[in-house]
Amino acid sequence: MIGIDWGTTSFRAFRIARDGRIRERRAGLRGILNVPDGRFAETLREEIGPWLAAGEDKVLLSGMIGSRQGWREAPYLACPAGVADIARALVDIEFDWAKVKLVPGLSGADESGVAEVMRGEETQVIGVPALLTGGLACLPGTHSKWVRVEAGRITGFTTHMTGEAYGALRGYTILGRTMRDGPANGAPFDAGVRRSGDPGGLLHHIFGVRSQVLAERLAETEAGAYLSGILIGHEARAALATTPGAVVQVIGAPELTLLYARAISACGGFAEQHDGEAAARGLAMIGERAAWD
Amino acid sequence: MIGIDWGTTSFRAFRIARDGRIRERRAGLRGILNVPDGRFAETLREEIGPWLAAGEDKVLLSGMIGSRQGWREAPYLACPAGVADIARALVDIEFDWAKVKLVPGLSGADESGVAEVMRGEETQVIGVPALLTGGLACLPGTHSKWVRVEAGRITGFTTHMTGEAYGALRGYTILGRTMRDGPANGAPFDAGVRRSGDPGGLLHHIFGVRSQVLAERLAETEAGAYLSGILIGHEARAALATTPGAVVQVIGAPELTLLYARAISACGGFAEQHDGEAAARGLAMIGERAAWD
Repeated sequence: MIGIDWGTTSFRAFRIARDGRIRERRAGLRGILNVPDGRFAETLREEIGPWLAAGEDKVLLSGMIGSRQGWREAPYLACPAGVADIARALVDIEFDWAKVKLVPGLSGADESGVAEVMRGEETQVIGVPALLTGGLACLPGTHSKWVRVEAGRITGFTTHMTGEAYGALRGYTILGRTMRDGPANGAPFDAGVRRSGDPGGLLHHIFGVRSQVLAERLAETEAGAYLSGILIGHEARAALATTPGAVVQVIGAPELTLLYARAISACGGFAEQHDGEAAARGLAMIGERAAWD
Repeated sequence: MIGIDWGTTSFRAFRIARDGRIRERRAGLRGILNVPDGRFAETLREEIGPWLAAGEDKVLLSGMIGSRQGWREAPYLACPAGVADIARALVDIEFDWAKVKLVPGLSGADESGVAEVMRGEETQVIGVPALLTGGLACLPGTHSKWVRVEAGRITGFTTHMTGEAYGALRGYTILGRTMRDGPANGAPFDAGVRRSGDPGGLLHHIFGVRSQVLAERLAETEAGAYLSGILIGHEARAALATTPGAVVQVIGAPELTLLYARAISACGGFAEQHDGEAAARGLAMIGERAAWD
């Protein structure tokens, strides 16, 4: 089968063997925002035409391709939901050269009842063997997700605006004026994570980025990593508050999972890192249980 | 005497009688950023010329006019500092038509040793009679200050980037897309303040602004007030964490002190509101103790 993680800005396709092994892969920037005029069928055929010609006839899509801005909207499936529930809720798409199905996103609520939704992350979580029966996952990014799995089903999750807040604070506040590019990962990042445990709160801590540069205790090339450490530290502390010492499966791009693993360790948790292959394994596991005929 | 609170964007002058009463006042937008080519002397003369002609010969300036971007840089005075310490540290300025002195800003460190500075807020704090011997003040704004007074001296303070973070989040993240202008002060603001006490942390709570609008539990015209409540609630909770039940003197523009008073009450503190006249009283108290000859 063919599994595709089709997001807002990226397109990652995997040709998966019957035993779950990845035979071939393609990746590019043809995310849904970069596909003009709803030409999703044409884009898909251009990307995976050779695999279809080689006999593949089942295609499973996950991610924002199933949103209102994507090819077709797949209604959210309510938590708790496991791989069997998701496989039963796939949405068919018309496509002339193969059977194509969409993985629905999940909807839930945080512990205070505030609505939460995700698309794509559920498939990555399903693809991590350590989460098969239960555990805690973190998927860092523009909007990070922390996902709880119990008895083989995703029971709840929370979104943190960490990546986007970093961009807005760096780009559009006084903090950016004393910031120059530097290494993301090092002592300044760790100092920011430690700072997130001090009294005073996030809105005070971020102002300290500027104060510390003006007081010459932090270089301009270190300020970005320090701010990132403060924000990721606050996220990790809040997410781990109710389960100190938790083992967290961190899923994503290596440069980001590394930062999160450092922060999680510093905040009392234990992190294991997983790369984007989790999406391929999740697609294979869902595809295996799907009714293709 | 004449007292002037001369900030980054605003200019507020008070003609103060010997008994501390305000005889006349002027206010405008000739803050230091709006004075071209360092023409501070000319601007001052244009603004208060008639008062000088009427015989006033002492002028005391506070605020960013004493910063590097202002008329002359007045070195920061280290905390703890009270009205007598500040009056001894005034910096003289050359001006042909009157004696002009600058109030120095204060420097300090938060409880974790991170550097803090302020310019202008010290004068407002001195102008609040309830803080004469001790207490806690909050000066809301782009960069809010929380200031502690003990035994008649300012002993420490912290800055919170609340106002600027609000602007960056509203203007430059996905949150702004589902936001339209609406009343700042009402049930959505209060709901945001309550939300700041939930588990999950600030970066999670702010994402909920969007989730709640998409779930139709919050109107687009309510979303801005809800975000503001979340941020001000987080600020107030963090600032009150070590002194629950504290009485807070909130100093500033009435529309802002009202919001802060609501948040402080909801977070377990007690708020008293003071308007911009505090600056005039502070200038009078410092001016009274200054060596003018």
